[in-house]
Amino acid sequence: MGNCAACCRGFWCRAKNPDVRISLPVVCFVWQIAMIILFGVFVRYDEESDAHWSEHKREKNITSDIENEFYYRYPSFQDVHVMIFVGFGFLMTFLKRYSFGGVGFNFLIAAFGLQWALLMQGWFHALDPADGQIKIGIENIINADFCVAGCLIAYGALLGKVSPVQLMVLTLFGIPLFAVEEYIILHVLHVRDAGGSMVIHTFGAYYGLTISWILYRPKLDQSKRLNGSGYHSDVFAMIGTLFLWMFWPSFNSAISDHGDGQHRAAINTYLALASSVLTTFAISSLSAKRGKLDMVHIQNATLAGGVAMGTAAEFMITPYGSLIVGFCCGIISTFGYLVITPFMEKYMKIQDTCGVHNLHAMPGVLGAVVGAITAATASESVYGHEGLVNTFDFKGKYAERTPATQGGFQAAGLCVALAFGIVGGAIVGFILRLPVWGDPSDDNCFDDEVYWEVPEDEESIPPILEYNSHMVGKYADRMSSFTVEQS
Amino acid sequence: MGNCAACCRGFWCRAKNPDVRISLPVVCFVWQIAMIILFGVFVRYDEESDAHWSEHKREKNITSDIENEFYYRYPSFQDVHVMIFVGFGFLMTFLKRYSFGGVGFNFLIAAFGLQWALLMQGWFHALDPADGQIKIGIENIINADFCVAGCLIAYGALLGKVSPVQLMVLTLFGIPLFAVEEYIILHVLHVRDAGGSMVIHTFGAYYGLTISWILYRPKLDQSKRLNGSGYHSDVFAMIGTLFLWMFWPSFNSAISDHGDGQHRAAINTYLALASSVLTTFAISSLSAKRGKLDMVHIQNATLAGGVAMGTAAEFMITPYGSLIVGFCCGIISTFGYLVITPFMEKYMKIQDTCGVHNLHAMPGVLGAVVGAITAATASESVYGHEGLVNTFDFKGKYAERTPATQGGFQAAGLCVALAFGIVGGAIVGFILRLPVWGDPSDDNCFDDEVYWEVPEDEESIPPILEYNSHMVGKYADRMSSFTVEQS
Amino acid sequence: MGNCAACCRGFWCRAKNPDVRISLPVVCFVWQIAMIILFGVFVRYDEESDAHWSEHKREKNITSDIENEFYYRYPSFQDVHVMIFVGFGFLMTFLKRYSFGGVGFNFLIAAFGLQWALLMQGWFHALDPADGQIKIGIENIINADFCVAGCLIAYGALLGKVSPVQLMVLTLFGIPLFAVEEYIILHVLHVRDAGGSMVIHTFGAYYGLTISWILYRPKLDQSKRLNGSGYHSDVFAMIGTLFLWMFWPSFNSAISDHGDGQHRAAINTYLALASSVLTTFAISSLSAKRGKLDMVHIQNATLAGGVAMGTAAEFMITPYGSLIVGFCCGIISTFGYLVITPFMEKYMKIQDTCGVHNLHAMPGVLGAVVGAITAATASESVYGHEGLVNTFDFKGKYAERTPATQGGFQAAGLCVALAFGIVGGAIVGFILRLPVWGDPSDDNCFDDEVYWEVPEDEESIPPILEYNSHMVGKYADRMSSFTVEQS
Repeated sequence: MGNCAACCRGFWCRAKNPDVRISLPVVCFVWQIAMIILFGVFVRYDEESDAHWSEHKREKNITSDIENEFYYRYPSFQDVHVMIFVGFGFLMTFLKRYSFGGVGFNFLIAAFGLQWALLMQGWFHALDPADGQIKIGIENIINADFCVAGCLIAYGALLGKVSPVQLMVLTLFGIPLFAVEEYIILHVLHVRDAGGSMVIHTFGAYYGLTISWILYRPKLDQSKRLNGSGYHSDVFAMIGTLFLWMFWPSFNSAISDHGDGQHRAAINTYLALASSVLTTFAISSLSAKRGKLDMVHIQNATLAGGVAMGTAAEFMITPYGSLIVGFCCGIISTFGYLVITPFMEKYMKIQDTCGVHNLHAMPGVLGAVVGAITAATASESVYGHEGLVNTFDFKGKYAERTPATQGGFQAAGLCVALAFGIVGGAIVGFILRLPVWGDPSDDNCFDDEVYWEVPEDEESIPPILEYNSHMVGKYADRMSSFTVEQS
Repeated sequence: MGNCAACCRGFWCRAKNPDVRISLPVVCFVWQIAMIILFGVFVRYDEESDAHWSEHKREKNITSDIENEFYYRYPSFQDVHVMIFVGFGFLMTFLKRYSFGGVGFNFLIAAFGLQWALLMQGWFHALDPADGQIKIGIENIINADFCVAGCLIAYGALLGKVSPVQLMVLTLFGIPLFAVEEYIILHVLHVRDAGGSMVIHTFGAYYGLTISWILYRPKLDQSKRLNGSGYHSDVFAMIGTLFLWMFWPSFNSAISDHGDGQHRAAINTYLALASSVLTTFAISSLSAKRGKLDMVHIQNATLAGGVAMGTAAEFMITPYGSLIVGFCCGIISTFGYLVITPFMEKYMKIQDTCGVHNLHAMPGVLGAVVGAITAATASESVYGHEGLVNTFDFKGKYAERTPATQGGFQAAGLCVALAFGIVGGAIVGFILRLPVWGDPSDDNCFDDEVYWEVPEDEESIPPILEYNSHMVGKYADRMSSFTVEQS
Repeated sequence: MGNCAACCRGFWCRAKNPDVRISLPVVCFVWQIAMIILFGVFVRYDEESDAHWSEHKREKNITSDIENEFYYRYPSFQDVHVMIFVGFGFLMTFLKRYSFGGVGFNFLIAAFGLQWALLMQGWFHALDPADGQIKIGIENIINADFCVAGCLIAYGALLGKVSPVQLMVLTLFGIPLFAVEEYIILHVLHVRDAGGSMVIHTFGAYYGLTISWILYRPKLDQSKRLNGSGYHSDVFAMIGTLFLWMFWPSFNSAISDHGDGQHRAAINTYLALASSVLTTFAISSLSAKRGKLDMVHIQNATLAGGVAMGTAAEFMITPYGSLIVGFCCGIISTFGYLVITPFMEKYMKIQDTCGVHNLHAMPGVLGAVVGAITAATASESVYGHEGLVNTFDFKGKYAERTPATQGGFQAAGLCVALAFGIVGGAIVGFILRLPVWGDPSDDNCFDDEVYWEVPEDEESIPPILEYNSHMVGKYADRMSSFTVEQS
C-alpha cells in the first residue's frame, strides 16, 4: 500500500511543506463557528440541568436534590476528563522532543472532538422526538469524552508523523464513525459495553492503525534520532500512565447502572489493573539483559487490564475473574511491544508510535471476547432475576433475550467495531494522504520545532552567563578540565 | 509612577538585599500564631460538621446521611483545591529557572490565605448572631479557596519580581479587600457571581496589575535571560493548565445551587472552555511565522472561557451561548498576549509576568458583562417561575427585584470589583515599595537562586563522574570530539 | 548491628549482583498466580456491589440508589488512590537519577500490595461467617490502599538502596503485619484511628527504619554523587507533595463516619495541613544562610500536619486545635530533617533516604498522642450523647466505655503499632539481608541504570546532530568558545 505512491508521484509526493499558518486557523475557526451554529439549532439542557428542574422534581416525586443525575456521575466525569486531557496527553509526552505536540495536539483535538461528539451522539442517542432537539446533561458530556477517546487512541498510532490539521480531519471523520458504530452496537444490537472495550478501544486502535498503514513512511528512520524517550520525558509520561491507571475504574463505571453496577465496575477494573502491573513487570524484566525494566512497557502495558475490562466490568465476572483478565493482558501487551510492534513495522508497514496495537487493539478485542463469554454464561443463580434484567437491560423489546443470545450479540458487536475501524481508517487515511495538510517531511518527524516555537534549552543558560561575565564558576571550571585534558 | 522614585532615592532605592532569614520566619510564625488565637476565639464547626449533627438531622427531618452538605460539595471542593495548589502552582512553573518559586510560594501564600480567608469571610458571611462565632463547613472552605485564588492571580502579575515576604503582605491585605468586596457585591448588591468573574478574577487581576505598576522596574531587562521558558518548564506548566482547564467546571459549579444549578454551571463551563481552545490555537498559529504555535498562548488563553463563564455559568445562557463566550475569549486573550502585554509593558509601565491581564482581567470583565446581559434578559418563559426565583435568589427582601434590575446590579458589581482591585492594589503597592521586604535586585529577578537552595544540575553528573574515574565513556568521547576539532 | 556482618563474611558479603532477570519475573508471576487462586477461593462481592443489590435494597427499605455505600466513599477513594500512586510515587522522584525507580517500584509494590491487603484485611475484618468468604466493596478497597501506604512509607526509608525483589518481599511480609496490627488496634483494643496515625504512619515508618538499620551500608557515600536532587526532579517531587497535601483531607475522612464524621475529618485535616506549611517555611528559612529555603523541607514537612491528624481528625478537636497540631508538626518535622536525620545516620546507623522518620514516624506518634488526649477529654457537653456514642462507637460490648478509658486504649494502640513496626522490621530486615535478592552494590545505589533501561539524555541530541552534519549551530558555537578560551 505504501508503495502505490510510486505511480502518481507528481501529485502525491511533492515536497512536504509543514506550514500550517493558513490551514490550521481556518480549520479551527470554521469548525468552531459551525459548532456554534449547530449547537444553536440543536442543543438544549435536559430536564435535570434545566432551570425547570424544580418543577420536574415535583412531578416525578423526587424528594431530594441529591437524586439529580449530576451527583451520581459528576465525580466519575471529572476522573474521565482527567484521563482524556492529562492521561492521554501526558502519556504522549514520552518522546524526547515531541512533548509539546503530544500534550498540545491532544488538547486541541479533544476540545474540538467533544463538541462534535455532543452533536453526533446527540442525534443518535439523545434526540428529543418532541422538538427535534438534543437534550444534554452530565451523561452526554461523559459520552462525549468517551467518543473523543477513540480519536485520541488513533492519534497515538500517528504521534509525531502528522500535522495538527490532519489530526483535526482525523477527528472530524472519527467522531461520526464512532457515533454510528456506537449506535449500531449499543442500540441496534443492544450490546453492553459500558467501558468501551469494543466501542472505544478496538475501534479507535484499528482506526488509527489503518490510517498509519496508509500513511506509511518508508524513510521514517531519517527521524530515528528523535524517535525515542528522554529521562525526563519518560517521567512526564508516567504522569499520564498513572492518571489513566488510577482513574480507569471511574472510566469503566462512569455510565454503568446506578448502585451496584457502578460499584462492581469500579472494583473489577481496580483488580484487573493491579494484576496487569505485575505481569508487565515480569515480562519486561524477563526480556532484557540483566533483567532491566523498560519504561515503555511500564507506561503502557500496565493499563491493558483496564482496557480489557471495558465490556465485562459491570458483569458478575467475580474478583478473581478480573485478576485473570489483567494477568493475561499484561503479558499479551508487553509481548506486543517486544515482538509484534517491530514485526508490524518491518513486515506489515504499520508504524505505530505509541504501540496502540498493544495497549488498545489486542486488549480491546480480548475484552470484547471476555465480555461475550461472561454474558453468555450469566445466570439467574448468580445475578438474581432482577439483577440479570438490570445488568443486561433485558427490558422492553429485549425482555425475551437470553444470556446465551446476548453473548452472540456481544461477539457481533466486536465485528462491527473492527469493521468501522478498518474501513473508516482506510477512507480517512486516503483523505489524509492529500498533500495539502502540512505534514512534516520524513526527517522532521517527532520534532516539536516544526509546529511549535520551542524555547532554547534551559540547560544552556548558566554557561553562557558565566562565560560572558568572566566569572570562574562551577561550569567554566568543568569545561576547562575537559579542554585541558585534550591539549 | 515608576519614575516618582527619583525624588526620594535615598530611602526608596537603597541597594536591594534579598535576605529573608529573619523577616520570613517572623512573618510566618507571628501570623500563624495570630491565626491560632483568632480561630480559638471565633471559629467553630457548623451544624453539619458538628458531632451534634445526628440531633440536628432529626430536628430537620433529614432522612439520610447523604443529605449532609458534605456530599453535595466535597468532590467539587477537591477539584477546586487541586486548581489552587497544582493548577495555579504549576501554571507558574513555566519560567526556566523560577519553577521552585512559582510552585513553592504559591503553596505558601495559599496555605496562609485560606486560614485568613476563613476568618475574614466568616466575619462577613458566616457569623452566627447567637454566639458571635464563625461556623464553618464545606462551603466555607470552598469559599476560602476562592478567596485565595484572588491573591494567586495577583501573584501571577508579580511572578519572579517579589520576595516571599512581599507575597505574604500582598495576601494579608488582599484577603480582607476580597472579603469586603465580596460582601458588597454578593450581599449588599445581591449580585450572582458563583464562579467569580468579578469577585475573583477581575478583582485579583487588577489588584496584581496595580501593584505591578507601582513596583515598576525600569531595568528589568537585566534579568531578560531568565525571563522565558524552557522546554521542560513548559511541559510542567501544561500540568497546571490542564488541571485548571479540566476542573474549571467544578470551580464554577462548586457553590452554585443544588441540583440543576450545579449541573448547568458545569455543562456551560465545559463548553466555553472547549471553544476557547480552538480559537486560541487559531490565533496563535495565525500570528507566527510558518504557523508555529506558542506555548504561552496554549498555557493561558485556553482557560479564558472558564474565567468568562464565572458569572453566567448557572444562568440559562444556553449551550451555544457558552460556546460563543468561549469563542470570543480565546481570541481576546491570545490577542492580549500578542499585543496588549507588550504595549502595557512599554507604554504603561506595567510588567505582567504571567499575562494575568489577558487571562483574568479581560475575560473577567467580559464575563461580568455577559452575566449582566444574561441576567437582564432572563424571563419566566425560559426559567419557569420557580427556576427564576431559585437561580437569582429573588427571595425575602429581593422578592420584588426584576431581571432587568438584576442586570443593572450585576453591572454595578463589576464596578465595585474594579474599584477594589485598583484602589486596594495602589495602597498595597506603596506598602510593598518599602525597602524592607527583601525583594530581589533587577538583575536577580526570575531566579530561584535568590530564595532557594538550588541543586546542581542533574545533567552535570555523568561527565564529572567519568572524568574523575578516567573512564572512556560516551560523554567523555563526545566532549573530546569538540575539543579536537578546535585544536 | 551493621557490623555483625563481619563474622560471617563468606555468606553475607559476597559481591552484589543486581541481576533480577530470573528473580523478579518469578516473584511477580508466582505471587500473582497465588493471588488469583486465593481470590478464587475466598473473595466475592459484598451486598452493595453484588447484582442482588436490588433485592437487598428492598429488604432494607433503602429508597434510593444514592444510598449505596459507593456514593459515600467513591470520591474519597479516588483521592486516596491518587495519593498512593501519584502522591507517594512522585514524592520519591526527587533523586536526580532515581526517578524511574521511585515512581516505578512504588507502582509495582502498590499494585501487588493492594491485592494481598484485600485478602489479609479481609480475613481479619470482612470474613462472612456464613460462608467463610471475604465480601468486598468500596470500603475494602480504600482499606487496601491504606494498608499499602504502610509499605510505601517503609520504601521511603530504603529508596535507592534495595532491589525490586526486596521491595516485593518487604510488601509480602508488611501487609500481614499491618493486618494483624490493625486488627489488634481497631478491633481488640477498639481504638479509633480513621486516618491511621498509628496504624499506617507509625507502623510503616518504624517498619522501614528498622529494616534500613539492619541493611545499614557503611560505604554508602560511594554513591554520594547521586544521593541528591536535581532541579527538575525537585519539581517532579512537588507533584507528589501537592497531591498528597491536597487529598489528605480525603485520606483522613475516607473511612470515617457518614455525615458529620467525614465532614469534620476533612475540615480538621485541611486546617492542620495549612498550618504546617507556614511553620515549615519558617524553620526552613531560619536554618539556612540568607534564609534560602530547602526543597526537601517543603516537599515533606508541609505534610506532617496531615499525618498528625490521622487519629483525631474525626474527633471534636476544634478548628484551632487542628491548627495547633499542624503548627507543631511543621516545626518538628523540619527540625528532624535538619538535625535528627543526620544524627541518625551518623550515630545510629539508620540511613533514611526520604526522611520518613521526620514525615511519618514523629508526626504519627504525635498524632497518636493527640488522639489519645482528645479522646480522653471528650465529653457529652461537646459531642452530645449521640455524637459521643457515634464518634467513638461506644456500642455493643463497648457501650460502657468512658472517654477516659478510651484515651488509655488509644495510647495502648500506639505501643502496638510501634512494637509491630520494630519487631516486624527486624525480622524482615534479616530476611532481606540474604544475599539472593539482587540489591545494588554500595557505589551503585540511587542509580536507575541498575534496574532500568535508561534513555540517553535528551540534552545530548542537538550537539551530536549538529556536529555530525557539520552545521554551525548554536551548540557548536558555544562549545568552541570554551575551547578557544583555553588554547
